[in-house]
Amino acid sequence: MYRTHTCGALRLQDAGREVTLAGWVQSIRKFGSITFVDLRDRYGITQLLFDEALNRELEDNPLGREYVLQVKGAVAERSNKNSHIPTGDIEIHVTGFSILNKSVTPPFTIQDDTDGGDDLRMKFRYLDLRRNAVKRNLELRYAVSRSARNYLHEHGFMDIETPFLIKSTPEGARDFVVPSRMNAGQFYALPQSPQTFKQLLMVSGYDRYYQVVKCFRDEDLRADRQPEFTQIDCEMSFVEQEDILHMFEGLIKRIFKDVKNIDYTEQVERMSWEDAMWNYGNDKPDIRFGMRIANLKFPAYAFPGKKPALAEGLPAEFKVFDEAETVLAIAVPGCSEYSRKQTDELTEWVKRPQIGMKGLAFIKCLPEGNSDGAFKSSFDKFYNEQQLKELAGAVNAQAGDLVLILAGAEERTRKAVSELRLEMGRRLGLRKDDAFKLLWVLDFPLFEYAEEDNRWVARHHPFTSPKPQDIETMISHSPVITDAVKYLEHPYARIKANAYDMVLNGNEIGGGSIRIFQRNLQEKMFSALGMSRDEALHKFGFLLGAFEYGAPPHGGIAFGFDRLCAILGGSESIRDFIAFPKNNSGRDTMLDAPSTIDEKQLEELSIALRES
Amino acid sequence: MYRTHTCGALRLQDAGREVTLAGWVQSIRKFGSITFVDLRDRYGITQLLFDEALNRELEDNPLGREYVLQVKGAVAERSNKNSHIPTGDIEIHVTGFSILNKSVTPPFTIQDDTDGGDDLRMKFRYLDLRRNAVKRNLELRYAVSRSARNYLHEHGFMDIETPFLIKSTPEGARDFVVPSRMNAGQFYALPQSPQTFKQLLMVSGYDRYYQVVKCFRDEDLRADRQPEFTQIDCEMSFVEQEDILHMFEGLIKRIFKDVKNIDYTEQVERMSWEDAMWNYGNDKPDIRFGMRIANLKFPAYAFPGKKPALAEGLPAEFKVFDEAETVLAIAVPGCSEYSRKQTDELTEWVKRPQIGMKGLAFIKCLPEGNSDGAFKSSFDKFYNEQQLKELAGAVNAQAGDLVLILAGAEERTRKAVSELRLEMGRRLGLRKDDAFKLLWVLDFPLFEYAEEDNRWVARHHPFTSPKPQDIETMISHSPVITDAVKYLEHPYARIKANAYDMVLNGNEIGGGSIRIFQRNLQEKMFSALGMSRDEALHKFGFLLGAFEYGAPPHGGIAFGFDRLCAILGGSESIRDFIAFPKNNSGRDTMLDAPSTIDEKQLEELSIALRES
Repeated sequence: MYRTHTCGALRLQDAGREVTLAGWVQSIRKFGSITFVDLRDRYGITQLLFDEALNRELEDNPLGREYVLQVKGAVAERSNKNSHIPTGDIEIHVTGFSILNKSVTPPFTIQDDTDGGDDLRMKFRYLDLRRNAVKRNLELRYAVSRSARNYLHEHGFMDIETPFLIKSTPEGARDFVVPSRMNAGQFYALPQSPQTFKQLLMVSGYDRYYQVVKCFRDEDLRADRQPEFTQIDCEMSFVEQEDILHMFEGLIKRIFKDVKNIDYTEQVERMSWEDAMWNYGNDKPDIRFGMRIANLKFPAYAFPGKKPALAEGLPAEFKVFDEAETVLAIAVPGCSEYSRKQTDELTEWVKRPQIGMKGLAFIKCLPEGNSDGAFKSSFDKFYNEQQLKELAGAVNAQAGDLVLILAGAEERTRKAVSELRLEMGRRLGLRKDDAFKLLWVLDFPLFEYAEEDNRWVARHHPFTSPKPQDIETMISHSPVITDAVKYLEHPYARIKANAYDMVLNGNEIGGGSIRIFQRNLQEKMFSALGMSRDEALHKFGFLLGAFEYGAPPHGGIAFGFDRLCAILGGSESIRDFIAFPKNNSGRDTMLDAPSTIDEKQLEELSIALRES
Repeated sequence: MYRTHTCGALRLQDAGREVTLAGWVQSIRKFGSITFVDLRDRYGITQLLFDEALNRELEDNPLGREYVLQVKGAVAERSNKNSHIPTGDIEIHVTGFSILNKSVTPPFTIQDDTDGGDDLRMKFRYLDLRRNAVKRNLELRYAVSRSARNYLHEHGFMDIETPFLIKSTPEGARDFVVPSRMNAGQFYALPQSPQTFKQLLMVSGYDRYYQVVKCFRDEDLRADRQPEFTQIDCEMSFVEQEDILHMFEGLIKRIFKDVKNIDYTEQVERMSWEDAMWNYGNDKPDIRFGMRIANLKFPAYAFPGKKPALAEGLPAEFKVFDEAETVLAIAVPGCSEYSRKQTDELTEWVKRPQIGMKGLAFIKCLPEGNSDGAFKSSFDKFYNEQQLKELAGAVNAQAGDLVLILAGAEERTRKAVSELRLEMGRRLGLRKDDAFKLLWVLDFPLFEYAEEDNRWVARHHPFTSPKPQDIETMISHSPVITDAVKYLEHPYARIKANAYDMVLNGNEIGGGSIRIFQRNLQEKMFSALGMSRDEALHKFGFLLGAFEYGAPPHGGIAFGFDRLCAILGGSESIRDFIAFPKNNSGRDTMLDAPSTIDEKQLEELSIALRES
């Protein structure tokens, strides 16, 4: 061993002890004939003192930033203590040292506030990983996986490895494929998830399975997506939805406790998918703050059972509202005094292509005692004071609030108001990194309409079971959509799934479902998705076969491990929580991968490059 | 939840309790109007009693083998107890039942002694996994990984995930590659091991890393190799070989304790590679038994410092010995009375192509008091009694032993005598599944000669450091081999590596090394392996770069997790310890993978199939 202690271990009570340390030179400070060096390792920083007796040796062997150094010496109390670090009471009076390895000057500083840009840090990721900020992220990641494994172990789950070289059954995302040399012309696929394997394990009787496992999706990478990502993947037999919700909110609470020392004792909230869309405009609402949507106008087909916020409907006075399919509003607390400049800026914000609205209407609900009257709006020309008041009332606005109103087509407008709500929450500081709020979103639709093919696709995946009361609807109706425009009137549009998502602070951190476990229902599902019998057998024959040999009722969930870590770490970016991430083109710039391979390799694999 | 208890939970003290169980029908036995059913799940088997009140219902809903059944009833003491199972004192008096799913007749019986052949069991692996024998293996596998993780965690190791989509740098085995859609004409490779990443993590200061991780090698599969396999992969910084040996024999001892309840308190034996070859004829000796090789004759170049077992050498009387490069013998205890038929059979055994010897000589060291004289040999014509006695003495044979002697070319003969020793150990019952004997093999050669290219290849891998005392030899000599026949006289043949293998019962379960951590030595290594500077930079530029920024001394080890589990489970086959293994053609017959993919997929990946 090159050391007796780490650089984070020594304390005042060790004073007088002869020790050997090894680590990296963080900084060098010369004061006359004395040199101070901060020596760094994974565990901390210890100050070294080289007195003048070592000057000659230091001259012959000059130190530099990031040199790897081994020192011997005695622990001594520091005169000038540093209360910011645990080793700040002591220093080492060096009696001898050895440079284990030198370093050229790093391309950026190894500090929390590094001067390195993103590209540089990715190319020299091994140096970026030395930074405290990144190290803390990886430590948190390990703590999360350790906590999850412990909880699952204690609850009788077994870690069972499933294969990586499997069969390509693209359904939704694209597979990464691997040419087989031994089976010319054939390919393996890398798993998008171990879904079918964990279901087979349930058929095999393994009852409670988990895995912390890499998955692969060859998608065009949006910001903060990775072609390879990690799931905490779980499945249970002989359970109903309630059992799963209970087990896995327990898991997340345990992680909160182990990793953040947070006692999440409150009940985890639950919300139907429909209510989430109605009140928050998306299926993963951030419920750390209110600012719920007021549905002033909306198409009946979208929310059949719901009533508009104004009993009488909007007054037919303002063309923008009158002609819109949907009018949605939020009341932003305490912003009634926004200046023209500020409301203009918000208008520009909703007009950005990512949001795509044509404009923004607003009502300022002025604080009481205002001489100009209680309400001022951007459409004063069309609405009188009473109408504004009623509208503001429908939005539950208080004096001092700013009501923001968006109007347009249903889907776009709802998405826009959801984004606007989140943005205002952010601006008002209502979305605190260190506040955590869990939510189960339930009762998702089973199907989603795929416009390009005029057919149904599985919203979750084809193995999710419909709600028992909807099975009859699924069996007794054809999936064929005769009138594409009115697809929402097709009975399939109303079928609900036994599916659930866990949402943390507005991010989906996990999702799952109770699965289909009967061959005939699974076959019906494949056919509902437009898969022919032959195709279903070719792709999933093994699963349909397995269902014939006594498949138990089962269900499960998968957590996005990278995302969960990022949120717990208070970051938006999963990349910061992955040791060696890829960039948005799927490249590892450190390795320079992917790269070309030898013609000989291609030949052995019986493939050739296409001319582009 | 579909059950209140598992099928392994109930005991006599639960008598009277109303319970609900769910599981699979293992067997059905009718006695008059009473039906007994054994209900099975992951946790055990519970006997169900359906009395005549349920006959009508059973007639309407007949049960079958592997049906999934839910029953309600009361726990009752059994009159006819079964002491073989923990639930054998009780049964359930069923009051109601529900068939959750039916099963067609399984293609083989779900029993320890199944009637299913290998191919059938692989195709229906989900049924095979129901068998107790297979379940025990997967439970053992989980226990090993859990134990390893706990030990490593307690010793400050961090689980850090390394990427799966990396760069192809074939060196030794072939890479599996993955065409990149977003980077047309370029490929990722799947890692053969996380070797370079764990070294980068050491450069990053992570100090103690581990991972239980899938690795991939596209090799022609010998029996019991898998294209994807799992390693327990570890690396440490600021350590010397002794630190690693100590840490990881601790790991294995902990696994012995946790998984097998074995206190492995004895010192783990150590042996140099040279001594292993000299005494056992291979680099992973099974030291559960002796029967060491006597080196009667051998070429000086192979073991420069060693002396033959007979000080005077073999008498020049027997052409077979005289003309052989190498003559090696073992003394098989208690087999001097072997019949002609038995020695003939052994002779045939060594003449099999896998062993490839021309014949087998033997000396029977007869028990004392034998009238015919003390020794009888297959070459009595050539050696007199005294010569036989001296030879037997050199082999350390006792009265009652059978000395087996092989003669031929060095490499083949040493391999053959090693195989013969193992075979005789097996036949004599000296290789017990439940006896465990660990061994470190040390001081491996750094290089191996590759005849086809007349160059050196890395015996372990190119990142293994030479012994400090051999670095000078490596730097000061050219790797070029001018006389291929005398390659063993090249100075490189004598360079020893800082490498170590852990051997358990004659199987290599882990191997590792102290790594090179200096750029110039790593460059020298690449060039010694015949890699040009450009090639080295192209393939490993990131690692050479990292070594410039303060790389610490480091080393590590990787354990073959599948193999380790198999040996601990007392099996020769790793396949029994993998949930979904592939066959010897790399196929998953259950999935029918690999398989063809759509032309559209090929096109998107910018590749085409070659005409074969």
